[in-house]
Amino acid sequence: MSLLQDLQWRYATKKMNGAAVAQEKIDDIVEAARLAPTSSGLQPFKVIEISNPELKAKIQPIAFGQSQIVDASHLLIFAAYDEYTKERVDAVFAQQATERGLPDGFADDYKNMLWSRFEQQTKEEHFQHAARQAYIGFGLAIAAAAELKVDATPMEGFIAPQLDELLGLDKLGLKSVTILAIGQRDTENDWLVNLKKVRTNTEDFLIKLN
Amino acid sequence: MSLLQDLQWRYATKKMNGAAVAQEKIDDIVEAARLAPTSSGLQPFKVIEISNPELKAKIQPIAFGQSQIVDASHLLIFAAYDEYTKERVDAVFAQQATERGLPDGFADDYKNMLWSRFEQQTKEEHFQHAARQAYIGFGLAIAAAAELKVDATPMEGFIAPQLDELLGLDKLGLKSVTILAIGQRDTENDWLVNLKKVRTNTEDFLIKLN
Repeated sequence: MSLLQDLQWRYATKKMNGAAVAQEKIDDIVEAARLAPTSSGLQPFKVIEISNPELKAKIQPIAFGQSQIVDASHLLIFAAYDEYTKERVDAVFAQQATERGLPDGFADDYKNMLWSRFEQQTKEEHFQHAARQAYIGFGLAIAAAAELKVDATPMEGFIAPQLDELLGLDKLGLKSVTILAIGQRDTENDWLVNLKKVRTNTEDFLIKLN
Repeated sequence: MSLLQDLQWRYATKKMNGAAVAQEKIDDIVEAARLAPTSSGLQPFKVIEISNPELKAKIQPIAFGQSQIVDASHLLIFAAYDEYTKERVDAVFAQQATERGLPDGFADDYKNMLWSRFEQQTKEEHFQHAARQAYIGFGLAIAAAAELKVDATPMEGFIAPQLDELLGLDKLGLKSVTILAIGQRDTENDWLVNLKKVRTNTEDFLIKLN
């Protein structure tokens, strides 16, 4: 199974060499995230793509100086909705109806049920739910990069409110949750490149109940 | 790129036909989740695999009667740590040191930094962080199922505390966060099977900053 081989190949590259990754590969990685399934099809997150060296340099201190931020070819920042709003939910159902040629109001019962649930939740609960959906896309982007044999480092170590302010995400109703740094491993200078991949054993990871 | 084709093929199957999925395919799907990268390699989640019809029938009312719960061949329940504990964190670093043949204490500085961060967080913050890691594995399991051309429905619609109690997850320090129902589509009775896949356009999904 090729995905499993790809996942064995990949690792969280600690030192990248600054080489550029072809834009079409970046596009494919973003496309995998865009195709991710999400709760009720809401897709409550965006991907922010950054390749500009000056902007990456401004991000580096916000990410505790980690070198991949500037040595990566591209940064893909996953940013979740800060909350669900009626407008955001309505727009999703309107697009579904249009693209599927469904009559107006076709999914109103479901939409109203969904909205009444969101109405009872706090803004923080909305965000946490949206963040999880972003992580589905994040997982698929990681899989895509591995298939393309492009190095990709998942990075959660950054001060999200500072990044949101720098990039103006707060004004868009978005909160950054994680970064995928995409580039090429610096084989000679990466302490992790030759170390064994370690994962919990299947016997500990999997619980079979019958 | 085969992942993108696989993601175009898959959809959230709404009606399954009860057919069994070969165990080796289930094993591959679980393996993809096990290989998922997670924050500091902590893998703060487990997968619970269920194929027993009686147990599935007990879960169905907890999942608002949704038919996939009983018509699926297998349910994979993703359950995150309810909190990070010193024991859980220590065990990960100990395993890494053993499998990589590193000297005792090699990663102590990093581990202490990590633990001091967790110590300042609430149990709820730990859980939310762990849940996001589970969703990376969930995304990779979805990709694996699609590659195997096995139908898989992501399901968040269930009452987690009730499921945790039924399965005894609470006693294991776990909280269920999402389910992947794996089975075979009932083509004649699934209202979604022939509808167009709808996703946000790339222009809206992707924000390029330069």
